[in-house]
Amino acid sequence: MKNLLTRCSIRKYSDRPVADELLNRLFAEAARTQTMGNLQLYSVVVTREAEMKAKLAPAHFNQPMVTEASVVLTICADFNRTTQWALNRKAHPGYDNMLSFLNAATDALLYTQTLCNLMDEEGLGYCYLGTTIYQPQQIIDVLQLPRLTFPVATLTVGWPDECPPQSDRLSVDSFVHHETYRDYTPQSIDTFYTAKEQLDENRRFVEINGKETLAQVFTDIRYTRSDNEALSAELLKSLRNQGFMV
Amino acid sequence: MKNLLTRCSIRKYSDRPVADELLNRLFAEAARTQTMGNLQLYSVVVTREAEMKAKLAPAHFNQPMVTEASVVLTICADFNRTTQWALNRKAHPGYDNMLSFLNAATDALLYTQTLCNLMDEEGLGYCYLGTTIYQPQQIIDVLQLPRLTFPVATLTVGWPDECPPQSDRLSVDSFVHHETYRDYTPQSIDTFYTAKEQLDENRRFVEINGKETLAQVFTDIRYTRSDNEALSAELLKSLRNQGFMV
Repeated sequence: MKNLLTRCSIRKYSDRPVADELLNRLFAEAARTQTMGNLQLYSVVVTREAEMKAKLAPAHFNQPMVTEASVVLTICADFNRTTQWALNRKAHPGYDNMLSFLNAATDALLYTQTLCNLMDEEGLGYCYLGTTIYQPQQIIDVLQLPRLTFPVATLTVGWPDECPPQSDRLSVDSFVHHETYRDYTPQSIDTFYTAKEQLDENRRFVEINGKETLAQVFTDIRYTRSDNEALSAELLKSLRNQGFMV
Repeated sequence: MKNLLTRCSIRKYSDRPVADELLNRLFAEAARTQTMGNLQLYSVVVTREAEMKAKLAPAHFNQPMVTEASVVLTICADFNRTTQWALNRKAHPGYDNMLSFLNAATDALLYTQTLCNLMDEEGLGYCYLGTTIYQPQQIIDVLQLPRLTFPVATLTVGWPDECPPQSDRLSVDSFVHHETYRDYTPQSIDTFYTAKEQLDENRRFVEINGKETLAQVFTDIRYTRSDNEALSAELLKSLRNQGFMV
């Protein structure tokens, strides 16, 4: 797949515009991705207006890509459209529940990733913002997302104006299991993680953050228990507000 | 992207074996997909043994692909490996919560879809089994998935022995919104769904099932409120069992 092996997240974009014709072609092609019952349980909200980008930015901790990218795409799990269809066709939909949320989130994320792979092939740069599910209510309010929709992914998109170094990955045998899950031991953890821990950039990362181990940078600074628990409570509240956990 | 526009789910496979070398190459290439904090919050369990396929089959409503495919891949959201890493590195992980589950499920699903796109390019056939989250506990038990892992996707994989007709898709303007979500009206539902409803295969589908509308086939037979609610309760129970909702 063209450019997959050299891909990087792109956070700086040139002034070259991203044409609607190109985006629409990629949106249509990505829709060939498998989808539950062929229902296409997703929506894409395209943000181009500066004012709307500025409103979305706080939900993404004001990462500069949100206001600097040509386009911001918010991909949503969507059981609203299917529900509206059913209600207009003498049918009684029952998609206000957790399974239906995960069905739609799955459809939306698979669609998102085909779109990413297509953008890689076109040479378009993008950055996937995991912050989308951190403060979903802000995004829901700004984009006016109705009941039975939920934002699950955001992509900032533009033509690249940087060529960052590629990040490392774990070896295949660290995450592939045969027949049953083989749980990890102190020895296998050493085998799989030592190379990552010894990378110059990761040693620096540990030092800058005043920590003893790389793992501590993740548990104590980047993704802490207290943040995760507070954000989980908000996430569940937003899922309830959007009608997915009644 | 090669073969994307003509892709179909493949449910019948030839006897030609799927080599481990090929799978391992695709597993490694797919790992270039973006991942949260470069943590790669996923695992893949490869099932080749007939006995294990037979054990997995009931969790997938005994769809014949599970026992007939060369390989079955179960892709799991995985915060276990990262947690074991942290515990072995004097760090205090806090990933037993809903946000962390969704973070890992997201990583796993994005990884899954790049893998699917790579398989399309190789000419490999696959069928995505949405049943994975319907009865996850059975899969957890068979594959011995530990706490902080959860199956989110299953792919049956083999060389194609069929060339099924391609299914239709909704038009791009049905699922793409600009600046804010434009909710649906009876008129826009007609615009977006009439072509689908008038397809011969869908008319037959309505007739065979003794229904008045296509939407009723979905709400009354394929994805009913009572099934969704019962499966949601099981899903939440399994999420709790696996330590993701404490």
